[in-house]
This record gives sequence, structure tokens and C-alpha cells, in this order.
Amino acid sequence: MHLSRSIKQSVLTGTTIALATTGLTAVFLPKLNAQPLPLSENLVALNSDHGALLLRQSKAKADYVPLSTHFVTQINQAFCGVASVSMVLNAMAVDAPAAEAWDQNYFTQKNTLNAETEAIIAESLIRRQGLTLAELAEIFETYPVDAEVHYGSELSLAEFREKAIANLKNPDDFMVINYLRRAIGQQRGGHISPVAAYNAATDRFLVLDVSRYKYPPVWVKASELWQSLDTLDSTSGKTRGMLLVQRR
Amino acid sequence: MHLSRSIKQSVLTGTTIALATTGLTAVFLPKLNAQPLPLSENLVALNSDHGALLLRQSKAKADYVPLSTHFVTQINQAFCGVASVSMVLNAMAVDAPAAEAWDQNYFTQKNTLNAETEAIIAESLIRRQGLTLAELAEIFETYPVDAEVHYGSELSLAEFREKAIANLKNPDDFMVINYLRRAIGQQRGGHISPVAAYNAATDRFLVLDVSRYKYPPVWVKASELWQSLDTLDSTSGKTRGMLLVQRR
Repeated sequence: MHLSRSIKQSVLTGTTIALATTGLTAVFLPKLNAQPLPLSENLVALNSDHGALLLRQSKAKADYVPLSTHFVTQINQAFCGVASVSMVLNAMAVDAPAAEAWDQNYFTQKNTLNAETEAIIAESLIRRQGLTLAELAEIFETYPVDAEVHYGSELSLAEFREKAIANLKNPDDFMVINYLRRAIGQQRGGHISPVAAYNAATDRFLVLDVSRYKYPPVWVKASELWQSLDTLDSTSGKTRGMLLVQRR
Repeated sequence: MHLSRSIKQSVLTGTTIALATTGLTAVFLPKLNAQPLPLSENLVALNSDHGALLLRQSKAKADYVPLSTHFVTQINQAFCGVASVSMVLNAMAVDAPAAEAWDQNYFTQKNTLNAETEAIIAESLIRRQGLTLAELAEIFETYPVDAEVHYGSELSLAEFREKAIANLKNPDDFMVINYLRRAIGQQRGGHISPVAAYNAATDRFLVLDVSRYKYPPVWVKASELWQSLDTLDSTSGKTRGMLLVQRR
């Protein structure tokens, strides 16, 4: 276990590239840097004492275990929607296509898209601009699930809270939001992720952010999350919003 | 949302390949099949009413939220160890290399391996035979963490249970096991995954199996899990076992 102790020291210096010697050859090692971006004060990281307490106290978390069991990181900067679809379909154990790397059936961010979704929006276009709320629903509905669309502009805060809580208490349906990050104090634009729980005492929802390299899952005040849905998506010309997804 | 309703029907037929018509072109859609393999009766899936209850009742689950927040699927059939290392390092928020797909620092199954780990075992060899317990520890220790090795042959059931529970109650250290799947009633060979919780009433540990395409996370009886560690790894000539990992 002690082979590489001397190398570790050099890796941990602040230089951009550390030069290390392993046996006879000199090798370049990548610089290591602090992980995710700092959170603004209005947000509570799930991965903190306070965040974990909010989860323990939650009475509306039926979707948390199935979603976190299939939590993935979006594979590129525009695939937040595709990542969210694959998580939710796996969480519902919907019959899945083969995932060739493993010789098993499981939704991935590669096999969730196919010729049928290509007719809704080309993968090449998703890679440039992501998905609108309506496109996200259409992709879900190429599988045997219904995706009920609620635009932010059409939801009062009370309606949003009520529909979301009912969904999160029911293990058989799931909730995905399309929101504007900067409206909740994050960097920066439109984003898509599943929501996994609600804490009544603090009136906060837990967003399982699929850009795990960037932010942890966060507890967001209901009013702020609701406002982040009622923002204009310039691609669709409509507001963002939420999907409620269940088996057909 | 109704564009593709007719296509959906054909996808869901039992034929090997479904032929669908989207606008003017005929396309082939992949067959959809049931997800993971069935569990034998000695195991409890986390994603079941019983499994979720065991988690709620657990008093030793400090590692569950940080691990599940960074849960990944091994990217090929031999990378269970690499997947486990990247999960644990992210759960500990260890300074990470850049993940180039995202322009952020985060451990992935690609950037966790580097020139330094190559000197321990070549990636090409990992892809053929996976990692031994000792190699797994050495790879962890190329980062600023200590990985304490406990071979199955050197642990009594009482010692295993005691060390594991202490680890799972402490959010600052983590536990990874190298075990034989068939000893707990799964298919089939040696495997590596993090352990996230312990339920005292049933004397079961929760294994966050990184081959998520194959099995859900499972609650395993302590005695069975302990026996699965005390099995011979023909590559090392030693038994499998567990690692207790903490920041140096």
C-alpha cells in the first residue's frame, strides 16, 4: 500500500501539472481541485447535516429511494433532460432496451434516444440546445408512461405545492422540473432534473440535480422553485414548468 | 404529446425488432425487456417496501446519503472497483481532477485512473480481470485517503460486524467490500461495491451494487456477507475482504 507515497505529495502541490517518478519513467499527473461550486445561502445541500435532517423529517419522500438508486450525471452539458428521463424510467422499472456495454436491459443516456425520439427532436439538436418541456414530455411518452405537462405560467404557488407533494408521497409516479437555475441562485441557465422529496417544516423541495459535477442535490424553498418554473424558455417561447409522470 | 402514439404500440409487441413509421421513413426500434435479474429470497431489494423500511429504521446510515448522491453504474463489466473508488472519493469531496466533458472537477471512472494508478495496475489489465482487494487499496491511496485492508480470512463475524457498523455510523469514513456474488445468491463471480447502511433488527447490511443494470441495492444478512468476503480470489491467491477508507 506504500508504493506511491512520494508521488502523492507532488500531486497535492498547487502546481498546474505535477511531475512524478514511477520506477524508471517520469509521468504527468492531473491537478486536483476542489469539487462542486459553492451554494448560495438560500439553498441547503442534501449532503450536509441540515440537508440530511430535512430528508429524515420528510413525510413526502416516496420517490427518493427509487430515484437516488438510479441517479446519474448528465453525460454532456445539454443532456440534463435525457439524464432525467433515463433516471425516471429506471426508477419506474419500465421495460428497457439493451445496454450493450453490459448485456442487460437498462436505460442509459445513450439508449434512451432512438429512431422514435429522433422524430421528435434530433439528438444532434439536443446536444446543442437541450430539451423544451414539451419535447421532454414527448420523449417520455415514446415509452409506456404518461407525462402530464404543467407550464409555470399556469400554476399558482398553491397548485404547484399541492400537486408536487401528492406526487412525492406516491411511489408510483414521478416529478421532473424544467427550471431556470439563476432564479434559485445557481449558475446559470435553463435546467432539467427530477424532484425527490418535500419537507413541510421548511417548505422546501429536494432537487436531484443531474449535473453532479457542478452542484449537490439541494433543498429549495417552494416559492423560489415555483418562480424558477415561471420563466421564459426562448426556444419554446413558453415558460418552463413541471412534468408529472406515471405508467400508462 | 400525441405524435407517436401509434409507434408506441409496435414497440411494445413481443417481436424482436419493432418496425415503426415516423412520417415518411420506416425505422427499427430496439426491443424493450424487463429490467434487473430476479433476487433470491435471502436478499431484500432497497427499492421495495421492506427495503425502504429497513433504511428508515437504520441507526447506522451516515454514509448512505453521500454515497447514493454519487452512485454510479460501472461502465464495463470489470470496472466495479473503479466505480466504487470514484463514488467514495466524490462522497468524501476529495479534491478531484478535471472531468473534461463538463469543465468541472469530479471523479469519474475515466479520470480516476491516471499514470500513477497505471504503475499499480494497467488499465488494460483492469479491463480484463478487475481489481484485487490490495490493488483497490493502492488505487485509493494514490489520493489523500487511507484504505485499511481487512481480508475475509482474518475477520471473525463479530469483528466484521463491529468494524462495519462503526464505519457506517461515522460520516467521515467509508466502507467498500470485495465479495463473491454467488455466496449471497447472486450471479456470479467476484465483485466490488460500497456498503451504505446497517439494520440492527434484521442484522443486514445494505450493499450499493454498482452494476445497477443487473441488481438493485440489496440488504444482505451479516453472516452471508461476511462469508462472501472469506472466499478465495484466484488472481491474488488471498481471500476477498473489506476496505475502511478515510481522509489522511
